[in-house]
Amino acid sequence: MSTADHGARRAALRRLLADRDLDALLVTDLLNIRYLTGFTGSNAALLVDAADQQGAEERTLICTDGRYLIQVGEQVPDLPAVIDRASAGALIRRAAERPGLRVGFESHVVTVDALAGWQSATPDLTLTRSPALVEQLREVKDEHEVTLLRRACAAADLALAVLIERGGLRPGRTEREVGRELEFLMFEHGADGISFETIVAAGPNSAIPHHRPTDAVLASGDFVKLDFGATVAGYHSDMTRTYVLGAAQQWQRDLYDLVLRAQAAGRAALAPGVPVGDVDAASRSVIEDAGYGELFLHGLGHGVGLEIHEAPGIGKAGTGTLLAGAAVTVEPGVYFSGRGGVRIEDTLVVREQEPELLTLTSKDLTIV
Amino acid sequence: MSTADHGARRAALRRLLADRDLDALLVTDLLNIRYLTGFTGSNAALLVDAADQQGAEERTLICTDGRYLIQVGEQVPDLPAVIDRASAGALIRRAAERPGLRVGFESHVVTVDALAGWQSATPDLTLTRSPALVEQLREVKDEHEVTLLRRACAAADLALAVLIERGGLRPGRTEREVGRELEFLMFEHGADGISFETIVAAGPNSAIPHHRPTDAVLASGDFVKLDFGATVAGYHSDMTRTYVLGAAQQWQRDLYDLVLRAQAAGRAALAPGVPVGDVDAASRSVIEDAGYGELFLHGLGHGVGLEIHEAPGIGKAGTGTLLAGAAVTVEPGVYFSGRGGVRIEDTLVVREQEPELLTLTSKDLTIV
Repeated sequence: MSTADHGARRAALRRLLADRDLDALLVTDLLNIRYLTGFTGSNAALLVDAADQQGAEERTLICTDGRYLIQVGEQVPDLPAVIDRASAGALIRRAAERPGLRVGFESHVVTVDALAGWQSATPDLTLTRSPALVEQLREVKDEHEVTLLRRACAAADLALAVLIERGGLRPGRTEREVGRELEFLMFEHGADGISFETIVAAGPNSAIPHHRPTDAVLASGDFVKLDFGATVAGYHSDMTRTYVLGAAQQWQRDLYDLVLRAQAAGRAALAPGVPVGDVDAASRSVIEDAGYGELFLHGLGHGVGLEIHEAPGIGKAGTGTLLAGAAVTVEPGVYFSGRGGVRIEDTLVVREQEPELLTLTSKDLTIV
Repeated sequence: MSTADHGARRAALRRLLADRDLDALLVTDLLNIRYLTGFTGSNAALLVDAADQQGAEERTLICTDGRYLIQVGEQVPDLPAVIDRASAGALIRRAAERPGLRVGFESHVVTVDALAGWQSATPDLTLTRSPALVEQLREVKDEHEVTLLRRACAAADLALAVLIERGGLRPGRTEREVGRELEFLMFEHGADGISFETIVAAGPNSAIPHHRPTDAVLASGDFVKLDFGATVAGYHSDMTRTYVLGAAQQWQRDLYDLVLRAQAAGRAALAPGVPVGDVDAASRSVIEDAGYGELFLHGLGHGVGLEIHEAPGIGKAGTGTLLAGAAVTVEPGVYFSGRGGVRIEDTLVVREQEPELLTLTSKDLTIV
């Protein structure tokens, strides 16, 4: 397994800061701190110094509290650590000791009250709203990250294969039982967490896009929709498959085939430089042409990585274009309220040539 | 099981708003929305109207997006729903249609960028920082909430009992295996989620307060510290027990006894009106008197409910006093770096008489 190069990520961030005439960025989002340093504790702040590439690493500080004294030394051996319970406040005070320092902060995650507190503690320090800079870097995955996404997707693929193989999807079981077994199997196959509460939706429930598992019992003839994912070292997989129990009726075959074609069209549209709205349209138009546009109730997909939903969003109203190395889902769905619905979803990486498929489970109509 | 009375909770909130001369509160924290309405979707905002108790319920609006159209009707039949993807923004626009409305917002969770966006969209609307009003209500649990906490604690108690009974804690297993089994058993015994990633810390790792499970193998003579919890309908249990594998040495018996006495002293100090700092001191002084004050690295406890950590914080520097009906943890620990540590933690409800213990697993020194 390759090792994350956190120093390279910080260097990339410094280039963004220089473009914005910032001397430093106060990073308070814990996932962004993890991305930039490897630290996984629950209390931290990071002051990334950009003023001078030469000495910038020495003046870049991570701060956490005493619970993580050992951990921060192990996970972040390459940066000086400040131990202080008021992590962001402590680094703000350090920054204020350097007159004239132009400090950006993550205004998309910092609360109104937190900013007010910093400003009253250090009235002379100029703080500049600098949203989503690290998220911009995170949108393009490096090979270390793709390796972790591949492992997360593999855990989900393997768990699903074993579930099907051992007859775990069968009439008489409840949605909840199936969900638990699938989650347990992900852990058995390399997951260290689950991406989100597993969706198991049987029969009419499959028409609810984000159904939570209940004690509803699977019955022969049902659609069963499984939307689930594993995490590996913080990276999330996301996959949906829809099965038919027992025997498929014609409307089910037709609906499945439609969503499958829409999903293939969405995947085929993934390429660097393509506007995200065009990717959504490529898939959505297949469903619209069949007359079911209004039953495709959500966007086509989203980025995945340290978060289950991150940039880029791929929807009707999305702006921006796909970047090579972005990891995204493609997940059209059509939902017949009260009868049943189909969603098919993969996680893929956008590549110069064709996209790289990370979720490898078959998408052929499968009757179990 | 009793049913939550969301209307009563909104009425209590209106009394707080009246005290603050607010006509309405924009609630954007999803847990606060869940507490006030029962809605569990991932996108929502709630405008609680307070101007006139008579018509206030009719003018109180919940907003979510089309994915939750069915769900919001089922979960919140008693409030009108607005369907709009920009949930908070949509309700801000509605509020702006009523000139002079004094609207509070949750400045402790609203980001700097979100507020800037609302202000530029509705420059004439006066928004007032109103942090943590719903959290203030949430600190005191009603009987419906205590029932759910009891069930969450019972799932954890039962899972631990089965784990011990079937010999799940034994030399040769890894921390990770034990953690997974314990989590699986919680689901088997009524949990619908876990409170946080289960901590299993064996031998020297038990001296790390917040150790994440590794492939470290349990060995005879080890302390094994288990810190874990279940959720039921969103409510979190939290419990820590520390066992000894095989046979206990004298230093282990002495350390265990010290922490046990400190924990009992902390529990005994729980009563309405007691300053939280005094509760911390009651337990901490036992450890300090033994000369190990510096090895008790964290606060004594915290509130639990819809969040695993919520008000009140119980620590050295804590302010405020305990309220009857608050659900809190009491969890002193002493950690001998490189050797091992002991933490013992219960979840309890503060009552007029003695506190009500929700985590019922024995705290006697147990050698497995």
